[in-house]
Amino acid sequence: MSEARVVRYIEANQKRFLGELVGWLKIPSISGLPKHRSDVLRAGDHVSRMLGGLGFKTKLLTSKGHPSVYAERIEDPKLPILLIYGHMDVQPVDPLTQWKHPPFDPWLEDGRLYGRGTADDKGQVMIHIKACEALIKMTGGLPLNVKFIIEGEEEVGSPNFEAIVKENRDRLTSTFTVISDTSMVGKGLPTVAYATRGLVYFEVSAEGPKTDLHSGSFGGAVVNPLLALAKVLSGMVDERGRVAIPGFYSGVAALTAKEKRWFSMVKSLGGEIEQVAGVPALGGEKGLGLVERVWARPTFEVHGLSGGFQGPGSKTIIPQNAMAKVSMRLVPGQDPARVAKMFTDHVRRSAPKGVRVSVQEIPGGGPAFIEDVEQPAFRCAGEALKAAFGVEPVFARCGGSIFAPEIFKRYYPKTPGVLMGFGLPGENAHAPNEWRDLDNFQKGSITCADYYGRLA
Amino acid sequence: MSEARVVRYIEANQKRFLGELVGWLKIPSISGLPKHRSDVLRAGDHVSRMLGGLGFKTKLLTSKGHPSVYAERIEDPKLPILLIYGHMDVQPVDPLTQWKHPPFDPWLEDGRLYGRGTADDKGQVMIHIKACEALIKMTGGLPLNVKFIIEGEEEVGSPNFEAIVKENRDRLTSTFTVISDTSMVGKGLPTVAYATRGLVYFEVSAEGPKTDLHSGSFGGAVVNPLLALAKVLSGMVDERGRVAIPGFYSGVAALTAKEKRWFSMVKSLGGEIEQVAGVPALGGEKGLGLVERVWARPTFEVHGLSGGFQGPGSKTIIPQNAMAKVSMRLVPGQDPARVAKMFTDHVRRSAPKGVRVSVQEIPGGGPAFIEDVEQPAFRCAGEALKAAFGVEPVFARCGGSIFAPEIFKRYYPKTPGVLMGFGLPGENAHAPNEWRDLDNFQKGSITCADYYGRLA
Repeated sequence: MSEARVVRYIEANQKRFLGELVGWLKIPSISGLPKHRSDVLRAGDHVSRMLGGLGFKTKLLTSKGHPSVYAERIEDPKLPILLIYGHMDVQPVDPLTQWKHPPFDPWLEDGRLYGRGTADDKGQVMIHIKACEALIKMTGGLPLNVKFIIEGEEEVGSPNFEAIVKENRDRLTSTFTVISDTSMVGKGLPTVAYATRGLVYFEVSAEGPKTDLHSGSFGGAVVNPLLALAKVLSGMVDERGRVAIPGFYSGVAALTAKEKRWFSMVKSLGGEIEQVAGVPALGGEKGLGLVERVWARPTFEVHGLSGGFQGPGSKTIIPQNAMAKVSMRLVPGQDPARVAKMFTDHVRRSAPKGVRVSVQEIPGGGPAFIEDVEQPAFRCAGEALKAAFGVEPVFARCGGSIFAPEIFKRYYPKTPGVLMGFGLPGENAHAPNEWRDLDNFQKGSITCADYYGRLA
Repeated sequence: MSEARVVRYIEANQKRFLGELVGWLKIPSISGLPKHRSDVLRAGDHVSRMLGGLGFKTKLLTSKGHPSVYAERIEDPKLPILLIYGHMDVQPVDPLTQWKHPPFDPWLEDGRLYGRGTADDKGQVMIHIKACEALIKMTGGLPLNVKFIIEGEEEVGSPNFEAIVKENRDRLTSTFTVISDTSMVGKGLPTVAYATRGLVYFEVSAEGPKTDLHSGSFGGAVVNPLLALAKVLSGMVDERGRVAIPGFYSGVAALTAKEKRWFSMVKSLGGEIEQVAGVPALGGEKGLGLVERVWARPTFEVHGLSGGFQGPGSKTIIPQNAMAKVSMRLVPGQDPARVAKMFTDHVRRSAPKGVRVSVQEIPGGGPAFIEDVEQPAFRCAGEALKAAFGVEPVFARCGGSIFAPEIFKRYYPKTPGVLMGFGLPGENAHAPNEWRDLDNFQKGSITCADYYGRLA
């Protein structure tokens, strides 16, 4: 447990901490929209000044895309180093009309702070900054050397983050890494994650006749590109909900006995998902538990599809072409480049003659990540979470794709990467009315301050 | 053959005829766009005055939608009556940028008159008007009583045409009907059609989660509405290209021996379709000839599909919903209401749990039409075409859906309906740069003048 005075400091200063977080949240640092480019820089400058005020030396690490902010406070070169990863960029806010209040004008309601970036990820970075502040103010320093790396383009798939790591290889060296960009599996269920899913993303198109054709005069003779694309896509998943691309599952490992036990203890996830989704029934691979399906199995999804006539009323055409956006989430053992090739081949094989299909990979993907949890860094994380939340933590995998931990793993194979996040299911991370639980914000800082001490 | 002086009159006056047609074509009578409502009326007034000038008594037949123009010239109550059907409304012109010149400012090029309505259908109506003019000017009258019914909303599926026929049942009575809204199967191949395909049109939607969801956090648990809709649609057509809805083909008759012979003589259609479509291979039901597939077999088409993220780049969502526009072309023996029910049931049956599907029929469909060709009206049509074009005419079915002949058949079951049109494949009837062959325009009037005489 953190020292009592550290805990008290964190508890006593929550209102000010939230005020400072709001100041950062007001900067619309949307990395996906070119017109917000300077806002990402402003958000970087803002967090640099906050860390500078705590005695951190800061530096902007530039890239071809958005920069990352680096900060370090070296207490004693002989102490271990903790590298804390988070990001300062946020998702776009459309549809704006679904927000109760403006997304960059945060508001408090029902024990939550609402606004873009509260959950993902400025709120999480702030949890660490305030843990550092409490330790520095109450104990005169940090129990180990701390480095921050705060990325500026996580929300667009971290296209230049590997280049930044490569260029700053020595600077970013650490003994432990903590990645704070994930959620707890439920309220009151503190969570340590040790894996993320990877991603490959494609645009698939089917080109048919050189112009839209009258379906009366040509129907029966000309292959319909929309129907062809529907066939190709529906052929990607079989009747049991498994991806039907030959070879797709080669390399995918079964859950370990320990994982089976851990996953079986996560009772609430199905209910959380049902409530957020509001669907009449859940789906996915038959014969597997829900937790395994979402955390540890690869999937195939169609994100968008368009073609032909989409207005009101009717138009009887065989459309010229059709387009779909699709992706696959990957798990450890699957190589993105190999899956990309298998997918492309399968599209070509399954497309009917009479349409020309093309597959274009969209950058921003990457492999899955998995870490061995039998390491002190995980034990310390579990202990710190248990101390702050009063219950045993859940060991989880993350269904989403965060590329930083996998990049760190490649450059620093011996440094353990712990994913410790304080979000909650249903926090609308990429949706309107994103929020962060205030209780978790406070307990998060208490946990982190304790964690640093245990690692030292 | 028409009398020589009638033929000479038609040949000598082509330039003036085209000028008068252009005057009518300049009126943008797009029935599908509310802002052109008055233009449909203007087009009706324009053709009424042309027919009035030839001694026809004219009347506007109003409806809940656009009106039809009626005209009659009763030479002698004891003579038979020919009812000529065509339409004065046209398709929208988008995409406007693909037109070489403005669509309502017709131009001559390479023996063709270009402009919206040249082929479909003002040009065809004009062929009859000019046949009448030639007969009246050269012989002092028409060889039989002639009535015109010129519809104002064929291009939106004739939603009120049955009501007009019902209300004017006596007025529209005739001995023979000729419908001129079809094409020849190729240049130099005069064509009489005796059947059209029917149509049922639907909007199908699949509703999934109550908001777009993050595919990392929910992928594997929540059914993807786009993938579900793709499965439903691709399940509508089997591997052999047949519609896979149980019971769909019940009532569909095989070709008669005579039809097989006629269809086998149509050698050019595949080439015409390939050239217009520009596709690497043709498709459709396996084991059947191309002509049968396009003219005499029912089909399933997807006209439009949309859902999820369609912008540039990537977005990793499970979309909230998906929508498709689909239709089936029907052949004689298929009841649209019965097919609609079978389709709706099949959608419900094949949709995965986890999405809510709905099927909404879009008005504007109707049953197929077929006429017995063993009647004098068809023999006369064939003879007139042979006389004008110098070759045996083709007996054809029309792959498209024209509802007027089927409506006439229900109200006047004993009146034969002959489909005689002078369009050509590739004439861009519903597309940019619509055109009419000038040679066919002239031969069309010569054929019609001859045909009237043969019917008398």
